Amino acid sequence: MILNEKLLTQFDPIDGTIQGYPVVERRLSQLRGVFGDTQAFEEALAEQGDALVYSVTSVEPAEGKGQLHYGIGKIMPGRIGQEYFMTRGHFHEWRIAAEVYIGLNGIGLMLLEDDSGQNVRTLELSANSIIYVPGHTAHRTINIGESPLIYLGIYPADAGHDYGALKERNFSQVVITQHGEPVLLDREIFLASLV
Amino acid sequence: MILNEKLLTQFDPIDGTIQGYPVVERRLSQLRGVFGDTQAFEEALAEQGDALVYSVTSVEPAEGKGQLHYGIGKIMPGRIGQEYFMTRGHFHEWRIAAEVYIGLNGIGLMLLEDDSGQNVRTLELSANSIIYVPGHTAHRTINIGESPLIYLGIYPADAGHDYGALKERNFSQVVITQHGEPVLLDREIFLASLV
Repeated sequence: MILNEKLLTQFDPIDGTIQGYPVVERRLSQLRGVFGDTQAFEEALAEQGDALVYSVTSVEPAEGKGQLHYGIGKIMPGRIGQEYFMTRGHFHEWRIAAEVYIGLNGIGLMLLEDDSGQNVRTLELSANSIIYVPGHTAHRTINIGESPLIYLGIYPADAGHDYGALKERNFSQVVITQHGEPVLLDREIFLASLV
Repeated sequence: MILNEKLLTQFDPIDGTIQGYPVVERRLSQLRGVFGDTQAFEEALAEQGDALVYSVTSVEPAEGKGQLHYGIGKIMPGRIGQEYFMTRGHFHEWRIAAEVYIGLNGIGLMLLEDDSGQNVRTLELSANSIIYVPGHTAHRTINIGESPLIYLGIYPADAGHDYGALKERNFSQVVITQHGEPVLLDREIFLASLV
């Protein structure tokens, strides 16, 4: 049995960090193709510079079957055109693997979509809420509030992250702001509205 | 893909409950044999009545490989002689299965012990701390504070709970209060001190 110091960590639910573990940043320039409004994206990059969109800190205490990994996510408040700051989103490499998200601070949405892209759902992620992301489900976290969205995620150690499957097609729907409210819309309809 | 309402829950980090899910109570009379000081136990039961020691609320959104279950635990402040209120403690039936505990409120200790009972460790469980319980590790949660200890636990859906293995021998060490401080002590030494 491993009973070392690494069994215990301290997280900061305001900063969105885990003491002693490296913060991995995702800046605007690394998220080309994630936002549907490419013109607004390039303008933001030119005008605002390479803004921090989100960061993730992961802890991987053990590997293999029955083990768990966890991390803390922090999405900054912000928008690219009508789209909110959000994560790239991913499937698990091990497709059946689920994930548990726990909201700590801020207000966000979890965008869920199945393999086919036909079955889509959003759930509110905020302090004291828990979202179960089933297997075979792409998941993207979106900050719809005015402060950082902070959350924990716990997942099987062998889940893995598959970003490739979404790189071509992206999520089939977008969450955009309309009259100050988040609205779920077909990507195609949103893209058509930009022309 | 299941994208039903059950994917989202709300927990109360003060009450130690999850909205809409049943609270399972563990009262003193159900915990005979858990506390080493049997005389103090019977006196407490006679004098204080069948006090609530702890409660657990579990959510099991899906079953099978790669799926996760989670729950919230609440241990009341209190003592039986020198022993603090605590959980019965368990191994996972699927011995390699790990568990992630997240402290929400109060101050506690997680008592960890391997299959052999030779390798023992305590870790502090309090707000914003995360404890990784590795596989093959019996774990018991102990409230060493003056307010309820509240925490979340996330574990593989097929972990299972094995209370039987500890029913005979119990944990090899006890955490007791001495001069107002929690102290880890061999069970045999503690029991000898009671005679």
